Amino acid sequence: MATPIGNLEDITLRALRILGEVDQIACEDTRQTRKLLDRHGIARPLVSYHEHNEQARAQELLSELAAGKNIALVSDAGTPLIADPGYRLVAQARAQGIAVCPIPGASAVLTALSASGLATDAFVQRVADPRGKRDSHDQQER
Amino acid sequence: MATPIGNLEDITLRALRILGEVDQIACEDTRQTRKLLDRHGIARPLVSYHEHNEQARAQELLSELAAGKNIALVSDAGTPLIADPGYRLVAQARAQGIAVCPIPGASAVLTALSASGLATDAFVQRVADPRGKRDSHDQQER
Repeated sequence: MATPIGNLEDITLRALRILGEVDQIACEDTRQTRKLLDRHGIARPLVSYHEHNEQARAQELLSELAAGKNIALVSDAGTPLIADPGYRLVAQARAQGIAVCPIPGASAVLTALSASGLATDAFVQRVADPRGKRDSHDQQER
Repeated sequence: MATPIGNLEDITLRALRILGEVDQIACEDTRQTRKLLDRHGIARPLVSYHEHNEQARAQELLSELAAGKNIALVSDAGTPLIADPGYRLVAQARAQGIAVCPIPGASAVLTALSASGLATDAFVQRVADPRGKRDSHDQQER
């Protein structure tokens, strides 16, 4: 689920509805997500899911999903998985037959591009690995 | 301003507020945009701006912007300029010192990518020219 990238009004009607309906919200930084929920009067359980606990926490989240719980995945800002954790969780959920429903919304790269005056018919997004290593799935772009 | 890509709930609080405040809404297909406005009880003047009238209409819109009017630019679905007209209007507005404010929201490519289970640390978007010609600004990607 995409969340705002600076202005807390940049959230969709559907995102607000679903945030209020899910059993749990997996987020990068619970303090950041709590600001968004407080602004819109939503109170749901939060659990941290970020690059440092991604592998272990993904297994816990998959168990809860397999047990029938509904979990919203958000990042601190923008569209999860786009320069944020989540890819492994989504890939594993799909492999286990768990339904994955994207809730569209803000993304920093497209928002900037659309107002930049730069040509928009072709672009490349490449996310640097913060550890300075190239990941094997980085091959996809070439 | 980004608009929904299939579900009319996929619109942000800020987009709805601004659609109700602008002097005019420039859109690809007025019938398509009217559905969105009707659903949310918004009535503002619409003007068509699409790939077939893009150059002439851009000059009219720039004149109105220069005269102090506020115009929202939307496409039929998703983020304008991303696989949609608008790049020339935005580039010319910026060149004339007219403020351009992007309102973030849904984009089909990132929504699909985020739920696909595909690796998301690098991707390329390339938009085919519908007339089968390569545009000169397509060079940017290479």
